[in-house]
Amino acid sequence: MESIKRFFKNDKFGEHVGIELLEVSVGSAKVKMEIKDYHLNSHKTVHGGAIFTLADLAFAVASNSHGTIAASINANISYIKAATTGTLIAEAKEVAINPKLATYTIHVTDDAGDIIAIFQGMVYRKKAAIDASHE
Amino acid sequence: MESIKRFFKNDKFGEHVGIELLEVSVGSAKVKMEIKDYHLNSHKTVHGGAIFTLADLAFAVASNSHGTIAASINANISYIKAATTGTLIAEAKEVAINPKLATYTIHVTDDAGDIIAIFQGMVYRKKAAIDASHE
Amino acid sequence: MESIKRFFKNDKFGEHVGIELLEVSVGSAKVKMEIKDYHLNSHKTVHGGAIFTLADLAFAVASNSHGTIAASINANISYIKAATTGTLIAEAKEVAINPKLATYTIHVTDDAGDIIAIFQGMVYRKKAAIDASHE
Amino acid sequence: MESIKRFFKNDKFGEHVGIELLEVSVGSAKVKMEIKDYHLNSHKTVHGGAIFTLADLAFAVASNSHGTIAASINANISYIKAATTGTLIAEAKEVAINPKLATYTIHVTDDAGDIIAIFQGMVYRKKAAIDASHE
Repeated sequence: MESIKRFFKNDKFGEHVGIELLEVSVGSAKVKMEIKDYHLNSHKTVHGGAIFTLADLAFAVASNSHGTIAASINANISYIKAATTGTLIAEAKEVAINPKLATYTIHVTDDAGDIIAIFQGMVYRKKAAIDASHE
Repeated sequence: MESIKRFFKNDKFGEHVGIELLEVSVGSAKVKMEIKDYHLNSHKTVHGGAIFTLADLAFAVASNSHGTIAASINANISYIKAATTGTLIAEAKEVAINPKLATYTIHVTDDAGDIIAIFQGMVYRKKAAIDASHE
Repeated sequence: MESIKRFFKNDKFGEHVGIELLEVSVGSAKVKMEIKDYHLNSHKTVHGGAIFTLADLAFAVASNSHGTIAASINANISYIKAATTGTLIAEAKEVAINPKLATYTIHVTDDAGDIIAIFQGMVYRKKAAIDASHE
Repeated sequence: MESIKRFFKNDKFGEHVGIELLEVSVGSAKVKMEIKDYHLNSHKTVHGGAIFTLADLAFAVASNSHGTIAASINANISYIKAATTGTLIAEAKEVAINPKLATYTIHVTDDAGDIIAIFQGMVYRKKAAIDASHE
């Protein structure tokens, strides 16, 4: 799990958007984002791009947790409730996996436990290991 | 079109991610993002969340260009080619519209004109005007 | 629940495609499809349209189980494993609901319990009841 | 183009749903479906599964027109307008292609030329030819 934590640390966009890793295990991950002023859109709610990025990081960590590079090829997000303050959590679960392709479902929730968005993502899994030498 | 430009300027997340508005007309919009180090993921390519946010801004501007608030309810993105340097452009076009719902297709392209990602988005259109007093 | 069962019986396309209702409760549903020769595509596997239709029926029953008409506005399907023989089951669960919009996740599985496809669907809920007089 | 026409003829589900091939060229295809009573859902409009299947056939023909097997891995559909009578047309266009993955956009229109649904599909392209010996 060290290499996947390093994988997360090297994600500059995740850092730029203020996303922190909470948990990771093989095929699943949990990340959080404390809502800041810079996350808002012109309706004063958290920007869809910020919510997507949070879900996408959980997805990236979960799908890369197997030790081989997984490239995201498709993602679908449905927005359920607007978010304005507090902390958002995204939790990714692996739903199905075959040697080349895998699918993940990510739920984004707010402090009240309400679902903010649902994200369904698909990866194409390449053969090379992320960093097998350090595992 | 003044109110939609103000709508874009008030988007703090768009500013945080370095997105600029190039063009807007009723039902369409074009935005750009010069790739910076902070846009990269741990594979050293532009983060899916950054590409999504770029497309999402074009989508938001195009769908809010009618003068009534349009809330994004669903988005689907397919990633075609990785991007590493240069400038990315996202162009949104309205594909279909009815009083409540509308659909947009957004193409993200790189400096070579190659498609980086395709984004399909849907909005639920509310009645209230963005800022009718200044139109 | 009588009106929702009638709702299912009146679905002519579901009948044409050989789909049967197994279970329904508020916000969830289970349907099945015994694979027949007419479900196959030219690769001799179950056609994506047949798998989608099966999932869509579970989605329609679950989303219309509240007694108000719910119109499907978006669906996303990821195909995980090809199916060739036996019976496919689709199970729909309501993930989130607000007065106007709701989201459902549907899993399609085969006789081995393996996931064939994942379906994420969104409805726009209208006010009128399906048939409140008989509830 | 003979092999792709044979590919279409061998699609039993397409035949079961009453879909006809109108045009095919490398990367694009056009199919039609005359609305019959068996296409309707319990709201007396064309079933989402029938519309999806129509779009999916255009997608399958377009993506298999290169002479190598293309397996659908993801599809997203947005429904714009209900259809009740007449003929529906689905037209598929290849938006982007790389050696392994390709993306298609399909528009479904009615007799008035109005858009009924938008479909975005992705294939994973395998190496083997459909039937190179007969080309």
